[in-house]
Amino acid sequence: MGERIYYLDHAAATPCDPRVVSAMEPYLTNDFYNPSASYGGGRLARAALEGARDAIALTLGAKANDIIFTAGATESINLAILGAVPEGSHVVISGVEHAAVRGAAERRKYTVAAVDARGLVMPEAIKSALQDDTVLVSVALADNEFGTVQPIADIARMLEDVRSDRRSRNVMTPLYFHTDGSQAALSLDLKVSRLGVDMLTLNAAKCYGPKQVGLLWAKPHVHLIAQLYGGGQERSLRSGTENVAGAVGFAFALELAQKGRHDENSRLASMRERLVPLLEEGVQDLVIDGHSKRHLPGHIHLHVAGLDAERVVFHLDNENIYIATGAACAANKATRSPSLEAIGLNPEEADGSLRITLGHLNHEEDIPHIAERIINAIQTERML
Amino acid sequence: MGERIYYLDHAAATPCDPRVVSAMEPYLTNDFYNPSASYGGGRLARAALEGARDAIALTLGAKANDIIFTAGATESINLAILGAVPEGSHVVISGVEHAAVRGAAERRKYTVAAVDARGLVMPEAIKSALQDDTVLVSVALADNEFGTVQPIADIARMLEDVRSDRRSRNVMTPLYFHTDGSQAALSLDLKVSRLGVDMLTLNAAKCYGPKQVGLLWAKPHVHLIAQLYGGGQERSLRSGTENVAGAVGFAFALELAQKGRHDENSRLASMRERLVPLLEEGVQDLVIDGHSKRHLPGHIHLHVAGLDAERVVFHLDNENIYIATGAACAANKATRSPSLEAIGLNPEEADGSLRITLGHLNHEEDIPHIAERIINAIQTERML
Repeated sequence: MGERIYYLDHAAATPCDPRVVSAMEPYLTNDFYNPSASYGGGRLARAALEGARDAIALTLGAKANDIIFTAGATESINLAILGAVPEGSHVVISGVEHAAVRGAAERRKYTVAAVDARGLVMPEAIKSALQDDTVLVSVALADNEFGTVQPIADIARMLEDVRSDRRSRNVMTPLYFHTDGSQAALSLDLKVSRLGVDMLTLNAAKCYGPKQVGLLWAKPHVHLIAQLYGGGQERSLRSGTENVAGAVGFAFALELAQKGRHDENSRLASMRERLVPLLEEGVQDLVIDGHSKRHLPGHIHLHVAGLDAERVVFHLDNENIYIATGAACAANKATRSPSLEAIGLNPEEADGSLRITLGHLNHEEDIPHIAERIINAIQTERML
Repeated sequence: MGERIYYLDHAAATPCDPRVVSAMEPYLTNDFYNPSASYGGGRLARAALEGARDAIALTLGAKANDIIFTAGATESINLAILGAVPEGSHVVISGVEHAAVRGAAERRKYTVAAVDARGLVMPEAIKSALQDDTVLVSVALADNEFGTVQPIADIARMLEDVRSDRRSRNVMTPLYFHTDGSQAALSLDLKVSRLGVDMLTLNAAKCYGPKQVGLLWAKPHVHLIAQLYGGGQERSLRSGTENVAGAVGFAFALELAQKGRHDENSRLASMRERLVPLLEEGVQDLVIDGHSKRHLPGHIHLHVAGLDAERVVFHLDNENIYIATGAACAANKATRSPSLEAIGLNPEEADGSLRITLGHLNHEEDIPHIAERIINAIQTERML
């Protein structure tokens, strides 16, 4: 029997729900067929794939045909940005975007719109970054570091005004709005019409589904150019034999997440409400980052200026408590996350920042122990 | 209990070996951690990922560090071609390449080198297609339609001479050799030094591993540019959270395939040797395509001029016999595969062509039944 693990890094990875694994298994083994094949087995695989697409469409309030399955959020984001924005055209991203958004935007002309100290992207900040050759705006529904929930619908309304203005001036450049909903899919409503976006990225790996499975939903009017060439799968926008098991698992994971989100949100919020005051009480100068109201329910970003957060993570690791420092999904740990600078943290604060993200693996009764060990690790590290 | 299925389309998809599924499962559920995380769980996931890389490196006789995990062969091929060949530079591909090779090559200047009537790519044909700005040659180790095994080592030696000649003339353009080994991985030796290539694509889905998992092996001297931007995983050549379960499954599937390939090759060859004469005997004017010696052991491509192959597939489907017409992994069935034209089939022959690819799911004792039903379906269709 393994030792008890306290996993506090659900924003970096979530375990595949055992029910999701069970739903995937037939398509790995017995029903493994290539969905492009015309015989019974192929049609069965095709039906499973399209069934998954339909189920996700229902969750998004979208048309199934506008959903492109991909191999994860990074690919979806790259397709959204590089596929919709011609070289030489302009992109606006917020200051708290995932590395994939920044990385893809860097292949184009781009402007980083300012965020406030809570990580919030105000529509005005996006507006002032727009140019007449801006083809795309990309703002995460909730960012992966502070868990700040962005005013996506407000930004969408502002962009609609900009489109009107462009039309009145005969500026023909399209203006698309993409949101990365990967981090928010467990907690927030994903109805695309309410969000008002043109494109939405989702990631199975962040909602108790399989890794390297994602999707890009794009309205039909978005002129997308494929980034992968080959057999012409996914309406020629994403070639490669379809991962039927992955799509089935993704659809089921998303369904479970969305059906259970109100209950799970309450559960996470209650744990967070208990944990935060304990940490604030136990550690002098501890600052909770992000927005006090508009945050993902299980997301806590904090900093203690001067603390060596990496060593705190190391101490806690020795006690089987897994927490993150900085952006955990970036492979290159040597560089400081630009999001921390974007909200105004200085290097001392940034290096003293920790991220705790609660999820399925956490239980209310463990909160006191977790709080005590985190406080102890910070105190120990501070005394050194 | 389902009806008995006779699956004869192993080149289109293979079922995940149950042992492979078992090997993957821990990394979907208990050991789901993000390999970029620094705590124990993250290190465990990292170790599994690197263990998979090491195991594959051993099979390839390569350095683990030169292996980039991808989401399948299409992505690997796109990375090899679009990542190594600058825009405006030239690519040479053979006439019997997979749609992904053709699709990526079409994004550059490219020449299709002729193949002979057996689907064989002679080094001279490649040589005569080369230009001084040719940066890459891509020839599949064995093609997916005829299963013709290409003289990769001979082409590699020819290319080495061309490189010498270029150097002597102060032509500085690099000349890389990429081979897509996806279809050959079950049957052929994959030692990269013997192949003499600079890059090798492999696909887990074709060797009883999971779908949408692949790799690109590239020698360190190949100047590759990433096609996906983000967190910087896979030495910044392929961003996106790593699919640890997929990599573990891939490594195990490849190990099983390579360890068992001599026995399995004999078994498949013996079935093929029994099936082919029965078909030739039973159907007048039936022509076996491809090379009589240099072919994958379980691969049979045939044509009967004037036959409506799609209807034969349909007849056989009704008898639970699954075979393919044309290139089964292309989603767009409306177009005729260019490979068929490349070996000189006219439209009547191309539309009358079938592909039978034997594998794990086939058994010697089923061959007479399979032969009889295929012959019957062709005869029935011919009489209409």
